[in-house]
Amino acid sequence: MKFFINSADQIVNEALDGVLTNPTLAKLNNFSEMRVILRKDWNKKKVAIISGGGSGHEPAHAGFVGKGMLTAAVCGDIFASPSVDAVLSAILATTGTEGCLLIIKNYTGDRLNFGLAAEQARALGYQVETVTVDDDIALGTDVKKRGLAGTLFVHKVAGQLAEEGKSLQEIVEMAQHVINNTISIGLSLTECQHLGQEPSTRLNDHEAELGLGIHGEPGIEIVPYAQADKLMALAVAKLARYLPHKEGKYAMIFNNMGSVSPIEMNILLNSFRKTGLADKIRYVVGPAAFMSSINMNGFSISLLSLNKELEIALLAPAAPLAWQIQAFSTPSSVPHPALPKTIPYKASSNKQVEQLIRSIAELLIASEPEINKLDAKVGDGDAGSTFAQAGKRLLSVLNQLPLNNPEKLLSSIGRILSRDAGGSSGVLLSILFTASGNAYSTEQDLGQAFLQGLKKMSTYGGARVGDRTMIDALQPAFEALAQQKSLREVAKQARQGADGTKNIVKTKFGRSAYLPESILKSIPDPGAEIIARIFERIAAF
Amino acid sequence: MKFFINSADQIVNEALDGVLTNPTLAKLNNFSEMRVILRKDWNKKKVAIISGGGSGHEPAHAGFVGKGMLTAAVCGDIFASPSVDAVLSAILATTGTEGCLLIIKNYTGDRLNFGLAAEQARALGYQVETVTVDDDIALGTDVKKRGLAGTLFVHKVAGQLAEEGKSLQEIVEMAQHVINNTISIGLSLTECQHLGQEPSTRLNDHEAELGLGIHGEPGIEIVPYAQADKLMALAVAKLARYLPHKEGKYAMIFNNMGSVSPIEMNILLNSFRKTGLADKIRYVVGPAAFMSSINMNGFSISLLSLNKELEIALLAPAAPLAWQIQAFSTPSSVPHPALPKTIPYKASSNKQVEQLIRSIAELLIASEPEINKLDAKVGDGDAGSTFAQAGKRLLSVLNQLPLNNPEKLLSSIGRILSRDAGGSSGVLLSILFTASGNAYSTEQDLGQAFLQGLKKMSTYGGARVGDRTMIDALQPAFEALAQQKSLREVAKQARQGADGTKNIVKTKFGRSAYLPESILKSIPDPGAEIIARIFERIAAF
Repeated sequence: MKFFINSADQIVNEALDGVLTNPTLAKLNNFSEMRVILRKDWNKKKVAIISGGGSGHEPAHAGFVGKGMLTAAVCGDIFASPSVDAVLSAILATTGTEGCLLIIKNYTGDRLNFGLAAEQARALGYQVETVTVDDDIALGTDVKKRGLAGTLFVHKVAGQLAEEGKSLQEIVEMAQHVINNTISIGLSLTECQHLGQEPSTRLNDHEAELGLGIHGEPGIEIVPYAQADKLMALAVAKLARYLPHKEGKYAMIFNNMGSVSPIEMNILLNSFRKTGLADKIRYVVGPAAFMSSINMNGFSISLLSLNKELEIALLAPAAPLAWQIQAFSTPSSVPHPALPKTIPYKASSNKQVEQLIRSIAELLIASEPEINKLDAKVGDGDAGSTFAQAGKRLLSVLNQLPLNNPEKLLSSIGRILSRDAGGSSGVLLSILFTASGNAYSTEQDLGQAFLQGLKKMSTYGGARVGDRTMIDALQPAFEALAQQKSLREVAKQARQGADGTKNIVKTKFGRSAYLPESILKSIPDPGAEIIARIFERIAAF
Repeated sequence: MKFFINSADQIVNEALDGVLTNPTLAKLNNFSEMRVILRKDWNKKKVAIISGGGSGHEPAHAGFVGKGMLTAAVCGDIFASPSVDAVLSAILATTGTEGCLLIIKNYTGDRLNFGLAAEQARALGYQVETVTVDDDIALGTDVKKRGLAGTLFVHKVAGQLAEEGKSLQEIVEMAQHVINNTISIGLSLTECQHLGQEPSTRLNDHEAELGLGIHGEPGIEIVPYAQADKLMALAVAKLARYLPHKEGKYAMIFNNMGSVSPIEMNILLNSFRKTGLADKIRYVVGPAAFMSSINMNGFSISLLSLNKELEIALLAPAAPLAWQIQAFSTPSSVPHPALPKTIPYKASSNKQVEQLIRSIAELLIASEPEINKLDAKVGDGDAGSTFAQAGKRLLSVLNQLPLNNPEKLLSSIGRILSRDAGGSSGVLLSILFTASGNAYSTEQDLGQAFLQGLKKMSTYGGARVGDRTMIDALQPAFEALAQQKSLREVAKQARQGADGTKNIVKTKFGRSAYLPESILKSIPDPGAEIIARIFERIAAF
């Protein structure tokens, strides 16, 4: 399996150096195996908030160091607790007379190492308190309940209170309140893979895991793989059994455990929205990775029962970009604007124009097989059908057109082609007519207007003269028209342009870009050919 | 392959409903295939900024709708341009007298559909401008240069200028300036997989792709899979050839294309830091997903050459949480605090205490084989060695200990056990002695102090009386001590506690949790056993 790493034993150090490109953070320059990331702007005048644990859970915890959240994070190896000395270093580096709070996730290694460091710091005269987060409800109310992404609620609330200058005792009480009112559960389609190791899996294509930890340990249940809505309903059913307050309002952390794609996270958030818990949610933190498990293809949901004080603390601005909270509600819509009718103008009559359009439309319909045949050799084989379809549609609405108003007529043809002609040639011709109509409204010159329209067609379509497209016939014809040349001369220019496309053997667009010179030399561009025929029909009218 | 979806044809609608849980956004209530997401707080008094394109690039573009960025996003199917009518709806819904700007990524479908909608809106009298983003440098300076994540720079700058009330013309000029000064390239280890379809791959385990688009199209080059630093160097070498200003300073978007794990993104950011371009970077947007390609396991880098005006616009606050910018610098460190020496106190002598410690240490060493043998039956088989190691270490530092000061002595033993005893029993005993020392400093009663220490050991270790651990011997012994009972009585309590562990057959900790009753009934907990022996030695002293 391929990973973006250099060597397995440098994963944590290198990842932390990536985090340290944030100039508001620094690392204690201890021995390299002690990894303490801390705020540079810290002056020990407030209560220090310290957390940490094994790595592999990025952005936790180093990504949450900064004003309003953690003062320091102590980072162990992948899924391994940091050493007692590393934790002690973090305490000594950040703790002043106001003391510090250690936020520990409920894993034996973290409890022991953070706990011992706390006792050692106390022996040195520091005021140190600890809280242990056990938000996992997969194990029910067992003492081994693990610390999951709900830990971030504790970081945010404790960090905010510390920022406000609250006392250690007040912060400990509130942190413990958050812990007592936070529940989490995870669900994953795959286990995490250790970077640099061969992948292994205990789950087959028909299985998912519910109630998992963040270190690759098996979930409490293997559940059948199912639709997103069904999997989400399973997770929510577990959460619903352990809600701290049945009638409460909640903030939710919607955590990507590592490699769920962004669009799937949005789908899952929508799945959650359909569950019975959705109307209890006031805020959602995410969706994003907060407490990942390397590259696990799963998610976790953490809920915190809100009160006014917590709401304020959660919403207060914080420096770490990884903390992302927004209000949560049901999707809403607003009335859409009325789209103009296909032909939004009043019909008007002009016999000559009517006959001309009819004649051209009949030409397009009659040319269908021949143009398709040409296109089959150098393109998709449907150019004739596209033009014929446009012709049929024009005939069907002929009596509804503003035939006596050139500007509105051009614009109407543009709209008809937009709705009813297929493929990119339909859109391109629609752009030509619509933009020509727009240009005609400022300067009443049909040749100039068509040249302006062609410019837009070229801008949006990307092709220029010489690219073996219908532009090779349109451009010289419109130029002749703008120069007030005779219609016979205009048609001659279009024909020369169309015939000339046979000699264009290097092209960038469509299938003809891949064809040999020998084939291209014998066939004109089908679009240019039908354009030449149209101008010939007009000249003969 | 397993994905979090319900049905393949509802992916985009459901994902957008997930986005719409943000109550500041709304959807136009058009036909369901027209997906226009817009700001609810928009009042048409400023220039509207509209973008969009195919879906599958989340959070782009709907995730960037909000104050200071997009006014509306028009979302097509996965990798497919939205319809002309959808774009036109977005224009009509948001555009007032100040006009609107369409930000188009350089793909034929988007150019045509957004372009035609622009022309149609102009026909209706709206002031509409378009810019086309072509930041991809994989194709050199070809006209087909694609629009990649650099598009987000245009969203941010144009969105900010619009918020400030700048004119459409000013915004168009600045947007075009951003486009002219933005370059991007991507590198991936895998292609994206279409959700709900069977996976396919053109890359083997030894290949990566450089210069790729965001729709699963092949990269310009297949390069050998290599270490993160080497792959990053390849991408950076490409970028370096096309820098708009050799001496300029840049902002960078560091984009996760879908499923790179957070820790790998940090490693890659560190890899970038080692390249020649790093010292040109002032700000980094990310690492995070901005313009993903469903679940592609790759990244892209976009660079924008900065000037003062752009810097201000990029740094201005914006409502969309998906926009995340911070300063970029080299990692820095600060001096670490001096850790106290293992024994930070002055040695003092007390013959009796010295002899007692020596005697206990010798007991621990002598008991190693026997305790290991017990532990081999119910645990890891190393309990004897852990205690013996502690004994040896105590003997070696005996003349450095503050033997005549109980508080400092307890604390010192705690520190020695922390540094030199192995396993969790070493840390647990260290917690016991350190916390007991801390307690002794407030109340000079050894029994009470040890009971306090034991409480901490229980808190951090998680075990209680009855859990078949050394606590079963320690607790009754310390209670007897606190009650001023004779040392003989204390030892008797410890022995009863240790022997009683044989009857504890339901346990939660360690290997013994998995052993049958028949084995547990014949063996005491090895930790409790050695504790009982220690107290017996003390009583006999």
